[in-house]
Amino acid sequence: MSPQTKGAATKQRMVESMLGLVEVHGYSGTGLNTVLARSGAPKGSLYFHFPEGKEQLGELAVGLAAERFQTLISKALQGAESAGSTGEIVESVVEGLSQILEESDFTVGCPVSVVALEMGAESERLRTACALAYESWTLPVAEFLRGRGHGEAAARRTASSIVSLMEGAMIVARAARDIQPLRDAARTLRILLDLPVSAATDGSER
Amino acid sequence: MSPQTKGAATKQRMVESMLGLVEVHGYSGTGLNTVLARSGAPKGSLYFHFPEGKEQLGELAVGLAAERFQTLISKALQGAESAGSTGEIVESVVEGLSQILEESDFTVGCPVSVVALEMGAESERLRTACALAYESWTLPVAEFLRGRGHGEAAARRTASSIVSLMEGAMIVARAARDIQPLRDAARTLRILLDLPVSAATDGSER
Repeated sequence: MSPQTKGAATKQRMVESMLGLVEVHGYSGTGLNTVLARSGAPKGSLYFHFPEGKEQLGELAVGLAAERFQTLISKALQGAESAGSTGEIVESVVEGLSQILEESDFTVGCPVSVVALEMGAESERLRTACALAYESWTLPVAEFLRGRGHGEAAARRTASSIVSLMEGAMIVARAARDIQPLRDAARTLRILLDLPVSAATDGSER
Repeated sequence: MSPQTKGAATKQRMVESMLGLVEVHGYSGTGLNTVLARSGAPKGSLYFHFPEGKEQLGELAVGLAAERFQTLISKALQGAESAGSTGEIVESVVEGLSQILEESDFTVGCPVSVVALEMGAESERLRTACALAYESWTLPVAEFLRGRGHGEAAARRTASSIVSLMEGAMIVARAARDIQPLRDAARTLRILLDLPVSAATDGSER
């Protein structure tokens, strides 16, 4: 491995370590020494790869989470393109999320939500990274809904609500140590999305 | 004021200070010295009123948030009992939440969500307090829906989804510094709730 490649690998490993720790303990509860220890990188790597400090590392971790979930969402929606009603497809995506939570024994939460809540008032940089993450999940859902006959404004609004509902249900499920809130959300979405398109896309848009 | 009354007032002020700080900075980001300074209580008060430390103070702060939001939800739903469709009423409750967020210039987030995300894996005590908080908000919403003709299981499921959606939309709105996600949620709920009751309460319950 060339020094550049090795450096990039170390950097990536540190971002992944940060992400894994934020998912469990939040941003303030994650110390840089713990990130270093988990990634196995030497202390100097921190200042070398992240000269702007923890905020920079946090921003990249949020970006990585955004990218991973976007891939998960897009693949699930594309793969299912013709495999059932809109509501059934969205329900299967929610199932995927439930599994992640259950497999972690409810120790993992959405890293974007926790950073938004902890740092939203303190760091414009982290707040912006979180806003971009939500936007990156809303867009493919809205596109999917447009492809299924929802009008522009309704698709956007419903996609926004789907992302909000999933975020909220993940948190409530984690607190309850029970996936029931996610099941409730999936069922509610199925009812909403399998309405005749005209009901979900009524003309009186803002 | 008797010493007991004065002590109770000091304790209450400290719980309120903790809550106010958690809403803005999260749990790990809130130091006990800052809580003391904000509440104006002498240092000894901490150990006197909260012998079990920060976790105990956090538990009471989550409990206080639970109680306040429950009152807000119950009052809004009762006050509106005959004032419109189910969807219109829920929309007006969401408006109330949007105002809180806007008035704080988006610096305030749900204290229960942030504690659930930061401490859910570390503290059974705090996780349980968060689970109870969500439950205390779900119950009055479910009762309201039952009063409007939803069946037992459907009312519970829809109430759970309403609470999850509100939690999620508060977070996304805070990240975006924009109440649009809450408006989207309100509109989605109006569409869902103003369906003919038969559609939202179909017989095929789990």
